[in-house]
Amino acid sequence: MQVISLASKFSQFDELWSPKIIAEVNNFHVKIGKLKGEFVWHQHENEDELFLVIKGILTIHLREKDLVLHEGELAVIPKGVEHCPYASQEVHVLMFEPKTTLNTGTDKNDRTVEAEWL
Amino acid sequence: MQVISLASKFSQFDELWSPKIIAEVNNFHVKIGKLKGEFVWHQHENEDELFLVIKGILTIHLREKDLVLHEGELAVIPKGVEHCPYASQEVHVLMFEPKTTLNTGTDKNDRTVEAEWL
Repeated sequence: MQVISLASKFSQFDELWSPKIIAEVNNFHVKIGKLKGEFVWHQHENEDELFLVIKGILTIHLREKDLVLHEGELAVIPKGVEHCPYASQEVHVLMFEPKTTLNTGTDKNDRTVEAEWL
Repeated sequence: MQVISLASKFSQFDELWSPKIIAEVNNFHVKIGKLKGEFVWHQHENEDELFLVIKGILTIHLREKDLVLHEGELAVIPKGVEHCPYASQEVHVLMFEPKTTLNTGTDKNDRTVEAEWL
């Protein structure tokens, strides 16, 4: 058991769109990521996915609307809902999601990354 | 699907030691709480519990040491580990834990509160 500093963890990597696991809570992982630009449209078959913005502005494109999250704001994308994260400037995001969650959801493509522990 | 502002949610209640549910992610709840003073020693039989400090300083007494969390810091208390949260000044905390989690863990006492949606 230890204290985990988000600022310290974010300082330890630079790669974009490459979520890092920083903690586990039962069957869930806490991940952090640095995002900039546009990701790919995807959905998760079984996993809801929570995004909490730590720094910057994150847009989550949905088919029917956009969610725009500022620092200290969060949203949950339920399983089965297509979404596409986008950030015009680099954004730091914390994610809570089941350990089975793949970043590109039901698709595997050139944006697929297996999250590693930081 | 909506954007949830932590600041807005925290502004909607004043009760101490009364966690409010603000989101669900599969079998987990995201809760927020305002804590001040000392809670009771307890443990959770099956649930790990994540604490993320949004504002202030939270001490989590463990039997063998204290964890001291500042803003932007988190810790996970694994199931079965006795702990007792403490805050000398009011602290705002986000918790991420299975929906089955009771605030006083395996004990029911005068500090037990069923979390309600905010």
